[in-house]
Amino acid sequence: RLVVPPGQGTRDHPPALAALRDRLLRAVVSCFKRHGAAPIDTPVLELRETLMGKYGEDTKLIYELQDQGGELLALRYDLTVPFARYLAMNKITNMKRYHVAKVYRRDNPAMTRGRYREFYQCDFDIAGQFDPMIPDAECLKIVHEILSDLQLGDFVIKVNDRRILNGVFDVCGVPESKFIAACSTVDKLDKVPWEEVRSEMVGEKGLSPEAADRIGEYVQLHGGLDLIEQLLQDPKLSQNKLAKEGLGDMKLLFEYLTLFGITGKISFDLSLARGLDYYTGVIFEAVLLQQENEHVEELVGVGSVAGGGRYDGLVGMFDPKGRKVPCVGVSIGIERIFSILEQRLKASGEKLRTTETQVLVATPQKHLLAARLKLISELWDAGIKAEMLYRKDPKLLKQLQYCEDTGIPLAAIVGEQELADGVVKLRDVSTREEVRM
Amino acid sequence: RLVVPPGQGTRDHPPALAALRDRLLRAVVSCFKRHGAAPIDTPVLELRETLMGKYGEDTKLIYELQDQGGELLALRYDLTVPFARYLAMNKITNMKRYHVAKVYRRDNPAMTRGRYREFYQCDFDIAGQFDPMIPDAECLKIVHEILSDLQLGDFVIKVNDRRILNGVFDVCGVPESKFIAACSTVDKLDKVPWEEVRSEMVGEKGLSPEAADRIGEYVQLHGGLDLIEQLLQDPKLSQNKLAKEGLGDMKLLFEYLTLFGITGKISFDLSLARGLDYYTGVIFEAVLLQQENEHVEELVGVGSVAGGGRYDGLVGMFDPKGRKVPCVGVSIGIERIFSILEQRLKASGEKLRTTETQVLVATPQKHLLAARLKLISELWDAGIKAEMLYRKDPKLLKQLQYCEDTGIPLAAIVGEQELADGVVKLRDVSTREEVRM
Repeated sequence: RLVVPPGQGTRDHPPALAALRDRLLRAVVSCFKRHGAAPIDTPVLELRETLMGKYGEDTKLIYELQDQGGELLALRYDLTVPFARYLAMNKITNMKRYHVAKVYRRDNPAMTRGRYREFYQCDFDIAGQFDPMIPDAECLKIVHEILSDLQLGDFVIKVNDRRILNGVFDVCGVPESKFIAACSTVDKLDKVPWEEVRSEMVGEKGLSPEAADRIGEYVQLHGGLDLIEQLLQDPKLSQNKLAKEGLGDMKLLFEYLTLFGITGKISFDLSLARGLDYYTGVIFEAVLLQQENEHVEELVGVGSVAGGGRYDGLVGMFDPKGRKVPCVGVSIGIERIFSILEQRLKASGEKLRTTETQVLVATPQKHLLAARLKLISELWDAGIKAEMLYRKDPKLLKQLQYCEDTGIPLAAIVGEQELADGVVKLRDVSTREEVRM
Repeated sequence: RLVVPPGQGTRDHPPALAALRDRLLRAVVSCFKRHGAAPIDTPVLELRETLMGKYGEDTKLIYELQDQGGELLALRYDLTVPFARYLAMNKITNMKRYHVAKVYRRDNPAMTRGRYREFYQCDFDIAGQFDPMIPDAECLKIVHEILSDLQLGDFVIKVNDRRILNGVFDVCGVPESKFIAACSTVDKLDKVPWEEVRSEMVGEKGLSPEAADRIGEYVQLHGGLDLIEQLLQDPKLSQNKLAKEGLGDMKLLFEYLTLFGITGKISFDLSLARGLDYYTGVIFEAVLLQQENEHVEELVGVGSVAGGGRYDGLVGMFDPKGRKVPCVGVSIGIERIFSILEQRLKASGEKLRTTETQVLVATPQKHLLAARLKLISELWDAGIKAEMLYRKDPKLLKQLQYCEDTGIPLAAIVGEQELADGVVKLRDVSTREEVRM
């Protein structure tokens, strides 16, 4: 007989947290629905081969199931690869879907910062061949809406394009074979200073010091439409086909975001690279900005709360003929947002109700269990959220105390007198006012 | 490049089914909330040792994760054992909770009958030391409410008590060491005739033919309050302590169910045994009755759509000092209900809307993308569910066609005239009526 906690990097959600998370997920889903997305669900268990070779270095973080006979299975690592597998399998070339579900990573958990081995992802994706940047702009609008709705404080959404980054690498003299390596090194710029990134480029990744320095000049730039214009005039970048395409689309994106009225929170940031291999165009990531009056230490390291981008090649990897379906999508980092809300709730001392019970059915004397059972049954059948104590003869004080402890606003009291008169006494628990009805 | 389906016994839910399931889960959860339950969530990954030794023969159906370093993990098999682990770990002695989540079983899938390897369970449980049969009666009321709400057709809820069964085995001369074996054999009576069950008892399970015959006389009985009274007068059973306790409580249960007005659907059925080891008192199972005008073949084998019972010893298995927390709970067999609703939907030819979009923002001329983006952004910010086609210059007909295909009731049209007048033309897609506003 042992008290056995759940596995490392996972945790139980007691009612207060489960209720808080339900509320958070409902807010996110309601935004996805507002944008016309349809729900889908895919299994937590995928064939191992479906997941292999999609996540670069992070493939080692995939949870594999034991071979117990039958197929070799693994737990899904994200919702994007299963979505691409779903599209290819069903030959769907056009779809706007959302998916809210748990994913699994054998990562080093940092639970106080909202990093778990089992966690929810909330994904919205648009698949299909459309005119440039219209779906991409909607993804950014969604991030803006959700982060504004949740009142998490000030935030910025960094935007870049893999084609611009690759163009930069190209004009800086990086061979194409080292683009991905350079990309994953640049991605660390939000955590470490340029000098460290530079030395990793030159040391580990084997770039020339000159190339690294030239890259440094670009990737430390960030701004808005002005920066896009400036780079479109850049003597080297403007000669590079990929960069020019990416910059042209970035300009279009800013035009659409201006119409959406959200450019105030958008930063075109050349240091944004994103880890995953599968991005092919626009990439973006939302970060919360430090709040002066908030618990600064706790917020440090929360980092990115949403991210996504365009992945035009992933579906083709699952199609026998390699047919591509262009896709762009966004994933809301619900666990990190949740850990912020959880800390706030703790700090505020506010007690969240964990049930929605409207009325407690109570009796003031003994031998009235039958009356309570009859009345509560009528209430339930009428769709009213009702509870009673599971005792034959509970004291009235204990029943009213239960209302106060759990936040039930009303008590429906049936005593001998009420039974004789054929009425019920409805008591407002906080004001103690009573009405016979 | 291969098209890789998800694992055997699992399946994707496309939008129409995901939307149907969401609706079903919402109905179940709303009943659980009506009864004052609070949500909790536990991880899908549990330590293997938590799950071992709780499910009798079915332990072999547990999915184990590969040893990749760290703890030995498994996927949860149900929501009851994790709930008991949660109560013991947090020393909770009193709780009413619901939990809706996926569980995993390496079973032989029978997908057309709603049997999967990955499936949702919807559980409601009441933990705590209370007066007899009050929480138990509420669990049955919940099953009754849910099955009535969902309009699945006629059903019956079979009720029995493990103590009565054990009393029967005892007075029929079965040694205590063979109670569990006898129990799991009796459990097959809903699928095979008594003769087969009898021969398994005598053959495989090693009971004497006389004992089997005596058991047969009891377990083929079913009825209501009259049967309880009859058995309370039974010369042998009335002398057996366990049976007497069980029958006394069963009488009390029927009293409470009468107050709830639901005895019409309840059958006290001595053949009900339920497979799992951990039940200690009342057990129950709801089955749908054959519908005359329904697809008989398809319904055959759907069987049990809800089940549960009392398990007073399970929490103690996780407590270092073996402290018991009495529990009673119910699990709604959502996947079986879902497969019935799915077949009905298919048969009716009805097309379920998969999105909730209220309005499509459309333009009748070219070069009006900016106007569409501006208008849709205002609609989203006002909380209105709106979509637009991701094309710069879509044809009006195509836009209206999209409304018809996806069931969007309104189109908000901005043309050059409307822009000049500062209005929007709102068109009812089905009646073609238009209002300028």
